[in-house]
Amino acid sequence: MSAAYHPSQKIYFGAAYYPEHWPEDRWPEDIRLMQEAGMTVSRLAEFAWSTMEPAAGEFDFDWLEKVIEMLAEAGMETVLGTPTAAPPAWLVTAHPGVLAVDESGRKVQFGNRCHYCVNSVEFHKASARIVRAMAERFGDNPHVIGWQLDNEYNRVCYCEHCQKRFQEFLIDTYGTLDALNQYWSTAYWSQTYSAWEQIPIPIGYHNPGLLLAFKRFITASYRAFQQMQIDVLREYIPEETWITHNFMKWYDLYDHYEMSADLDLASWDWYVGTGYTDYRSSGAAHDLVRGFKRQNFWLMETQPAHVNWTPLNNVLYKGEGRANAWHAIGHGADAVLYWQWRSAYGGQEQYHGALVDQSGQPRPFYSEAQMLGRDLEKVSDLLAGSTVKAPVAILFDYESKWAFEWQRHHQDFDYIEHLLNYYRPFARRNIPVDIIPADASLDGYKLVIAPALNILTPERVEKLADYVEHNGKLVLTVRTGMKDEYNALLPNRQPGPLAEIAGVEVEDYYALTDPVLLAGQRFQGNAHIWAERLRILDESSVNVMASYGAANGWLDGAPAVTVRYTGRGFVYYFGAYLEDNIQDNTLGYIANFAGIRPVLEVPEGVEVCRRITPAGTDVYIVINHTRGERVVELPWSAQEHLSGLVLEEGIKLRGYSVAVLTKTKQEEI
Amino acid sequence: MSAAYHPSQKIYFGAAYYPEHWPEDRWPEDIRLMQEAGMTVSRLAEFAWSTMEPAAGEFDFDWLEKVIEMLAEAGMETVLGTPTAAPPAWLVTAHPGVLAVDESGRKVQFGNRCHYCVNSVEFHKASARIVRAMAERFGDNPHVIGWQLDNEYNRVCYCEHCQKRFQEFLIDTYGTLDALNQYWSTAYWSQTYSAWEQIPIPIGYHNPGLLLAFKRFITASYRAFQQMQIDVLREYIPEETWITHNFMKWYDLYDHYEMSADLDLASWDWYVGTGYTDYRSSGAAHDLVRGFKRQNFWLMETQPAHVNWTPLNNVLYKGEGRANAWHAIGHGADAVLYWQWRSAYGGQEQYHGALVDQSGQPRPFYSEAQMLGRDLEKVSDLLAGSTVKAPVAILFDYESKWAFEWQRHHQDFDYIEHLLNYYRPFARRNIPVDIIPADASLDGYKLVIAPALNILTPERVEKLADYVEHNGKLVLTVRTGMKDEYNALLPNRQPGPLAEIAGVEVEDYYALTDPVLLAGQRFQGNAHIWAERLRILDESSVNVMASYGAANGWLDGAPAVTVRYTGRGFVYYFGAYLEDNIQDNTLGYIANFAGIRPVLEVPEGVEVCRRITPAGTDVYIVINHTRGERVVELPWSAQEHLSGLVLEEGIKLRGYSVAVLTKTKQEEI
Amino acid sequence: MSAAYHPSQKIYFGAAYYPEHWPEDRWPEDIRLMQEAGMTVSRLAEFAWSTMEPAAGEFDFDWLEKVIEMLAEAGMETVLGTPTAAPPAWLVTAHPGVLAVDESGRKVQFGNRCHYCVNSVEFHKASARIVRAMAERFGDNPHVIGWQLDNEYNRVCYCEHCQKRFQEFLIDTYGTLDALNQYWSTAYWSQTYSAWEQIPIPIGYHNPGLLLAFKRFITASYRAFQQMQIDVLREYIPEETWITHNFMKWYDLYDHYEMSADLDLASWDWYVGTGYTDYRSSGAAHDLVRGFKRQNFWLMETQPAHVNWTPLNNVLYKGEGRANAWHAIGHGADAVLYWQWRSAYGGQEQYHGALVDQSGQPRPFYSEAQMLGRDLEKVSDLLAGSTVKAPVAILFDYESKWAFEWQRHHQDFDYIEHLLNYYRPFARRNIPVDIIPADASLDGYKLVIAPALNILTPERVEKLADYVEHNGKLVLTVRTGMKDEYNALLPNRQPGPLAEIAGVEVEDYYALTDPVLLAGQRFQGNAHIWAERLRILDESSVNVMASYGAANGWLDGAPAVTVRYTGRGFVYYFGAYLEDNIQDNTLGYIANFAGIRPVLEVPEGVEVCRRITPAGTDVYIVINHTRGERVVELPWSAQEHLSGLVLEEGIKLRGYSVAVLTKTKQEEI
Repeated sequence: MSAAYHPSQKIYFGAAYYPEHWPEDRWPEDIRLMQEAGMTVSRLAEFAWSTMEPAAGEFDFDWLEKVIEMLAEAGMETVLGTPTAAPPAWLVTAHPGVLAVDESGRKVQFGNRCHYCVNSVEFHKASARIVRAMAERFGDNPHVIGWQLDNEYNRVCYCEHCQKRFQEFLIDTYGTLDALNQYWSTAYWSQTYSAWEQIPIPIGYHNPGLLLAFKRFITASYRAFQQMQIDVLREYIPEETWITHNFMKWYDLYDHYEMSADLDLASWDWYVGTGYTDYRSSGAAHDLVRGFKRQNFWLMETQPAHVNWTPLNNVLYKGEGRANAWHAIGHGADAVLYWQWRSAYGGQEQYHGALVDQSGQPRPFYSEAQMLGRDLEKVSDLLAGSTVKAPVAILFDYESKWAFEWQRHHQDFDYIEHLLNYYRPFARRNIPVDIIPADASLDGYKLVIAPALNILTPERVEKLADYVEHNGKLVLTVRTGMKDEYNALLPNRQPGPLAEIAGVEVEDYYALTDPVLLAGQRFQGNAHIWAERLRILDESSVNVMASYGAANGWLDGAPAVTVRYTGRGFVYYFGAYLEDNIQDNTLGYIANFAGIRPVLEVPEGVEVCRRITPAGTDVYIVINHTRGERVVELPWSAQEHLSGLVLEEGIKLRGYSVAVLTKTKQEEI
Repeated sequence: MSAAYHPSQKIYFGAAYYPEHWPEDRWPEDIRLMQEAGMTVSRLAEFAWSTMEPAAGEFDFDWLEKVIEMLAEAGMETVLGTPTAAPPAWLVTAHPGVLAVDESGRKVQFGNRCHYCVNSVEFHKASARIVRAMAERFGDNPHVIGWQLDNEYNRVCYCEHCQKRFQEFLIDTYGTLDALNQYWSTAYWSQTYSAWEQIPIPIGYHNPGLLLAFKRFITASYRAFQQMQIDVLREYIPEETWITHNFMKWYDLYDHYEMSADLDLASWDWYVGTGYTDYRSSGAAHDLVRGFKRQNFWLMETQPAHVNWTPLNNVLYKGEGRANAWHAIGHGADAVLYWQWRSAYGGQEQYHGALVDQSGQPRPFYSEAQMLGRDLEKVSDLLAGSTVKAPVAILFDYESKWAFEWQRHHQDFDYIEHLLNYYRPFARRNIPVDIIPADASLDGYKLVIAPALNILTPERVEKLADYVEHNGKLVLTVRTGMKDEYNALLPNRQPGPLAEIAGVEVEDYYALTDPVLLAGQRFQGNAHIWAERLRILDESSVNVMASYGAANGWLDGAPAVTVRYTGRGFVYYFGAYLEDNIQDNTLGYIANFAGIRPVLEVPEGVEVCRRITPAGTDVYIVINHTRGERVVELPWSAQEHLSGLVLEEGIKLRGYSVAVLTKTKQEEI
Repeated sequence: MSAAYHPSQKIYFGAAYYPEHWPEDRWPEDIRLMQEAGMTVSRLAEFAWSTMEPAAGEFDFDWLEKVIEMLAEAGMETVLGTPTAAPPAWLVTAHPGVLAVDESGRKVQFGNRCHYCVNSVEFHKASARIVRAMAERFGDNPHVIGWQLDNEYNRVCYCEHCQKRFQEFLIDTYGTLDALNQYWSTAYWSQTYSAWEQIPIPIGYHNPGLLLAFKRFITASYRAFQQMQIDVLREYIPEETWITHNFMKWYDLYDHYEMSADLDLASWDWYVGTGYTDYRSSGAAHDLVRGFKRQNFWLMETQPAHVNWTPLNNVLYKGEGRANAWHAIGHGADAVLYWQWRSAYGGQEQYHGALVDQSGQPRPFYSEAQMLGRDLEKVSDLLAGSTVKAPVAILFDYESKWAFEWQRHHQDFDYIEHLLNYYRPFARRNIPVDIIPADASLDGYKLVIAPALNILTPERVEKLADYVEHNGKLVLTVRTGMKDEYNALLPNRQPGPLAEIAGVEVEDYYALTDPVLLAGQRFQGNAHIWAERLRILDESSVNVMASYGAANGWLDGAPAVTVRYTGRGFVYYFGAYLEDNIQDNTLGYIANFAGIRPVLEVPEGVEVCRRITPAGTDVYIVINHTRGERVVELPWSAQEHLSGLVLEEGIKLRGYSVAVLTKTKQEEI
């Protein structure tokens, strides 16, 4: 856990605000409307480079200071963004090398975002200068509680400088070309490199070892750029002021765990896009971000009503936005900020949802934001410092994800979808789940799931074996244990060195054209997409939970799902990718067997999250994610904090409505 | 109206002919076959640059003069094309800057069409030289009745010279960078420009202000290139010889109103492509072109049987081609020319439909062309100088179309489809419609529809208000009045300054995932794609014609379609994009209320167009666009001019057949 | 027939093996497993350039010699590949011109395959050097029975050197620019070339004459590169050692007949990809390759279980792989080699099917390979020197295929699919078919089909006329006889000069939106995709077999399929593209009328192929391509060679099983 970020003393509520788009005399009205919505924080300056530094080395921060003061007077704190995602025209004109080069070899055009080469020396210099200037001016401003670096890092550069840096990175990583040639199997297709300068930045599909190394180089490049900004900031800002970056959902250009390691706080930008919220899937994204630092996070951006960048930018259903905010809080968000307060008259995002419209008046969605503001006024204290605890951990691994993106083998095999196939049974039962890095400690979990953990390292293997050795319950799944850390095949059958604890090995894998019916003791249903033919290595300790029915001749009758118990822990191996129904039943059974109980039993479509206060009080956040009324029966009498009512038997929740409960007296469950 | 083009004294009929592809001894047979088809005009030379000027400054026009003479002897007149759409190899070799640069930064390859940079100085020079040489030779040839410039302008060039010219264009337009930065809201994303040289030609999506400015620059570039040719020609050709360009349907690379302003005559190339004619939509394209100069037009190209450039190049149904020709004439065409007479043995268009096949014999479609030739012999005099008059105007705006192409927000929102949603109810009822520029005079229209007039200028607002003030009936629709002339948001709610005359404003807009049932007094049906929540500003003058049923919570119960009447005119506001059925009923009701009657009431699938002669005679062109027989009852006795029969009660029309009627005595309707 | 390749004395069986990926101490185990699978040949070295020549001019062949010896000791022979498909990094670094330039103008990146410019002088030099070095070392090695050049030639280069070479090729081909301009009709669109240097390499669609010339240039380029390798090899290898290249199915970058002319043996790589075998179509691909040299061929690569390069890489059904191998042998394969033995740990093809898995143990599919090995041990002698004889020839023409790819006119008109529409009726009846070049001799065929023979030369016309004159039965089909050898329109109606023998001409062609019902004497069904309106030129000799029903008005009632008989031969003209059902009936009728009988009558889904030994014995290969049991009744008693049983009445074949039969005594049929 970071030194700078402590469990939050309130749940922050606010929006991204761009005062530089508006005349100064408009600011008071904006701030008045923010106040009326109950906002407590504003996010400023992230794209304001050309306003703050209109020419090289000429700074203008007075306007920004004024806004921070006005906000403070209205009771709002500020998060400042460094503006490096938008290098100004004067910079790219003076130093064309600042512009990234795209995959086709052309300079990226000025005028959109993130047009920079992350490794450009001139860009680092210019970025350091603006960050330093901002830090000098605002580093000790008491109203600035945190800093966000750049915005949604997302560019790959293919310039010659980057290629050179990549080659240097490879020298650092491998030491010798012999090692590199060995790890990448370059005898294959005469790919042998006899000089570092021969190694390209990969365009399209390429040698898997090279592809993985280049991904690591991208991570290293962004991490260095980020660290440079952190180092500058930390010269000026107090220890308790935190630094974050706003990440994007399952986005995977780089390894988010590595990027988060240097930050104090994880935050992310959640957009539903086209359609409506599926809370059983979206909860996983929140849990992912909570796992970046294994602490609460900020929802730095979320959509007011609709976005502008999908093919069909519908609005959220009335009430859904507030429900989504509570969904985020239930999963560990300590802040909810809308993007954005109001659209500029011009620019690429004119059609994006906002709280205030072109006329400066509130849009209809503003009323929903107001409700949320009132909610938080009532329960922010209650939730102060509260956190989420989960009995189940799902292991996530960016490198395995990349490996699958390059080599899906079956077009419908999607690493995230496969993970969600293991997540949803818990979400449906209101069992909290942590999503954590594959290298994290597993202490304290009743159940650990390692979905499609394709890439194994000796450390991972040892950690998982150790967990089982200490009576853990571990679920391994299809495509686990095939690759080493260079994205090369392991010299064992799947699941590689985990075969020992699983008690099975994979004789072969099968991308399925058609579903295959499984026959198991308890469960009826199909495997689809992927099936592995398992061989039992230790008959004495392994039980077959399900076998394949008639399939392609190769699978027929073979074990599909097994469990091994040797007196210490349980290791499940899912060689079959199960359809949702049978998956739900099977995982429900396993959860129950592991002694894991729902936070609360509620009707379909109702989610219950639990945050636990520092004093140990359970706070239940109950969300009706449906459009119809739902009745939740309570096993105990409860205080409902949004209405102030005491509930003896249960609660009727209208569509998309929310309740925040504590037990009137702590009973034993 | 142009000085050079007067209402035509006949309906011309002909084809594009490329004698340069064939030996001279073939020409007499071609001309004989043209004569037998009843042709009266031939279109020559548009791609013959390398034949007319085989090397720089060496001209050979004898062959062309001979063809013109032979045609004249056979009673046919000539339209000459300037060949600038096909700059020869010797030119692009000598001056590589003549070749355009494509979006990816590569020179366009020689060997297709329109490979030129429209701003190339060398290209202007070479074009002026060939045009001057042609004009010197043929400018006073009495058989040359008109000139067509270039062919279907369609290229965007991304070369450095064009970028420089674009920057100069911006200097001319905005004067100062401060102004440009202001109009484009460049504080957004640090887009602020501190030097003109920083401004790029946009590739892909970009700042909406920049995008619109670049479109205007394209228009200005083509307009300058066109004017250069006009200036050269006008030195040599008589005043009554007209100049035109052949445009393409709804194509919108540039503003066709601006391009037409300098021409004497509008003409276009109509291709059905895959499938068959939907006359309720295709009529709008004719009406669009009639609106370019607000006078009759030429159908410069149309398909004999089939084209070669779609995925499935079926032929028109037998009879459909003739029906299409009459459809064009009914909407104001003064000429119908097929493309082309005969395919060259080689070249990219070997498979395109033609009247004569590879063997030099007529193809089956030739017989249909002959029928048309006989038709026109019979009625060309009757139609001489006749024009179309319409009680309804639909306003069209290229800039609004562009704005939507860049920011559809809903993938199914298509500006043309939306316009046709308002056009088809009139087409179905045989009510003539003018499609005119949004800035045109509205005098004399009983009803004006401004579909999705996204971009408003003070002049537009004033004109529309004035129209209503003078008792006009105006229909405003979704997405109207959101932007100013820089493609920036207007600082009012929609419909911007038109809210005053509409009596409503838009509280918010909603891209719809699902249809929403409307509840109105008279009309039952759904809104789809787009819905706006209306707020009534003046309860005393505004009636709600339809409201939203249960929708997404935000729209439920809100006004969807309103009408305002203050004693002067009527302003309808359609906040909902209606499905065809309810749209047809609603617009039918409004038309009726506006006192607008069909030209003639006929069965489904039969179109009736009316042209009015200079003497005031109504000529009814009745077209059965179906494959089955249709019976048209007539309220008056009529002369049918193709058959010579007098009809007392009605007429039976076989599939795809046509009648041309006048009343035997003018009765009052 | 080639001097070097004689009918094989056995059916070879093996796999591609890459010992350079593995430590030497692994080789014995691999070779042991090959032996246990019954393998008799191994394919080595095709991508081993960087291993064999780690730096320019430094060679290391000891490892390879050792493997060849070890294989020989285990009874296996070797096919050596020249490694030119994988030029090493040191070569492309030293000579960047070796790298091809792609269509967008960029150098192809190092690290995949075939990144070379086939015309690069430096690449030719380096290739000659490595091939010479291999030939010096292994040319007289008695265990090396053949050489495979490069691997699946597949790259087009767009570099300036290639453009220059293309222009030289055009000078050689056309002599003068006047001739070229004439043949390409360059007066069209002012494409006239006044200097050879003006002529581009076409990118995208272009002048059809230029497109065809460029395809011929690609063929000439690869042919020259291949001949260079052959010339080097022939200095060192014995006459009986054959040289081949592994082609790819219907792939058509170049003319495979021209490429095969210089080889001793044709071979190809057959991959089913996604899904399962359709033997009625796949047989045609085998027959195509058998037609390259009009002799037996090698199946140089085929998939063990699955591939890795389709969107869904399913495995073949159990048994299907062996059935496929027998299918290939039945169609003339003298060898079946799997690709590959074992995947390298790294490299792009980690997921490709292989016989041995990452752990070095056999994969499940290995057991099926073993069965095949056992099969071949039993019958290899029986099949020694046997060949396939067919009564039917289908003419194939790469140039016509290209012509259609550039100008499909109907998106569903696919030249191969159209050919298969004529092939499947014979495949279904177990009637052997030869697929031979359009210029091949037709002697001895009872029936010749020329599907969509778009491009005609005088020689082709004369040959076909001569065949009919000598009582041949010829089937002409849609789109035949439209183009000359420059891809220009012929100056006659279709089928051009074949109209004389067909007795019909095509008045026009129609790409169909909807099927058209045909009315014929014997056959009921639809035309789809394409229909031609036929005109009978000689009523006395031509009969109408089918006419069009109600269609688009143009076709209605016109002849669709005709046959002409003048006392000498029969010429069928199919102006309609028939749907499968009616096509099957019609072709069945024609085959029967031509006196062509099935090899054997068997139930649906069972294929019977016949190979005839040098001694004249018919060997029947009976393959159940279904998953269920099939009973084949035999008209004669038979010896089944895989089981050793004598069959008196018939044979029960389980799903995917195979029988190899000879008659116990030769009876007369």
